[in-house]
Amino acid sequence: MTHSISTVTLLHALHWRYATKKFDPARKIPETDWHALEQALVLAPSSVGLQPWKFIVVTDPAMKARLRPAAWGQSQVTDCSHFVVLAVRKNLSHDHVDRHIGRMAEVREVTTESLGKFRQMVMGNLDKARAEERLDLWQSHQVYIALGQLLASAALLGVDACPIEGFEPEKFDEILGLTGTDCASVVCCAAGYRAADDKYATMKKVRFKPEDVITRI
Amino acid sequence: MTHSISTVTLLHALHWRYATKKFDPARKIPETDWHALEQALVLAPSSVGLQPWKFIVVTDPAMKARLRPAAWGQSQVTDCSHFVVLAVRKNLSHDHVDRHIGRMAEVREVTTESLGKFRQMVMGNLDKARAEERLDLWQSHQVYIALGQLLASAALLGVDACPIEGFEPEKFDEILGLTGTDCASVVCCAAGYRAADDKYATMKKVRFKPEDVITRI
Repeated sequence: MTHSISTVTLLHALHWRYATKKFDPARKIPETDWHALEQALVLAPSSVGLQPWKFIVVTDPAMKARLRPAAWGQSQVTDCSHFVVLAVRKNLSHDHVDRHIGRMAEVREVTTESLGKFRQMVMGNLDKARAEERLDLWQSHQVYIALGQLLASAALLGVDACPIEGFEPEKFDEILGLTGTDCASVVCCAAGYRAADDKYATMKKVRFKPEDVITRI
Repeated sequence: MTHSISTVTLLHALHWRYATKKFDPARKIPETDWHALEQALVLAPSSVGLQPWKFIVVTDPAMKARLRPAAWGQSQVTDCSHFVVLAVRKNLSHDHVDRHIGRMAEVREVTTESLGKFRQMVMGNLDKARAEERLDLWQSHQVYIALGQLLASAALLGVDACPIEGFEPEKFDEILGLTGTDCASVVCCAAGYRAADDKYATMKKVRFKPEDVITRI
């Protein structure tokens, strides 16, 4: 690992980021940077590697305008450069697992048969979670890992972001055409650049003292 | 933002990371790097900034050995350098909100009275979620944002990690003394350095094609 960054660079970025309240609507994320942030989503870790998600990236102004009222009218939806809706795959199916197994076989150049034990283990885990009615909950957690990786990555590239849970998922699903599919909106993230006059940008970051959230044993 | 990193550096780190199966038990994370990773947890974004979490960092070999059987005997628990248990604060209380408000007032040098409207909004949101029995679920999602930020940060510092959901939360809570408190184990993360002979380190990363998980509108 020769490419690692310094702790100073990391902490500078994590201090610099904040939930951007006001984006500069004139500034767009350059293609290279956005591609990297999409890759941060694609490469996000997930339980057993199942990637139980879909990311809807909205840049179309008309679509942003339709979504905004279903997100409490928050200006970030329309003023950001790229608005991402992170969706979970509901009731994760055996078909999905088989698609993943197929992809494993393709990428690692092995037979699907050689992955039989893994397949069985995964199917068993999913079916158990399904029976206990915690499958969607489990998978929705994974979507938040992707969100966390996206937020940290954006900060490191100098791209502002605002995670948004304040929206009506059913309305979003309807507007985005997800209703009736196996995908459902879980959380959103607006990305772009802070407006020069966003007063939240200069407010001191508030965190509990480390000793109040970290216990060392 | 002058400290931002290149997309090449970011993507190199995100490709480099993998769920480490076998850690080198002899290698410990240097103090400076670990401090930065704790800061990545402390600085993680959370809904309304409430930080509904506690992070238990285990380095004591005896404690690791006690936890391991409750994590399906996985070797990462004992062989890693730092083993983190990410816990959620259950049934998030008005007291917690008031601690946060108190901290806001302290850090931003304002009166708690000036935060009255914010306080009311947050309390209302929590009570609504509590009434709808989705409060703990909502807060547990936040814990996964912290996990995502931790995993990306570790990769960027060249520190290996393995997120672990395969453990018995009730047993962990008992062993860690969380039973009967407002905290409950949600997910874990082992951090350290890959063993030279971890065969998973050289396997090709498997991800769906971008077009299969990303939709652009």
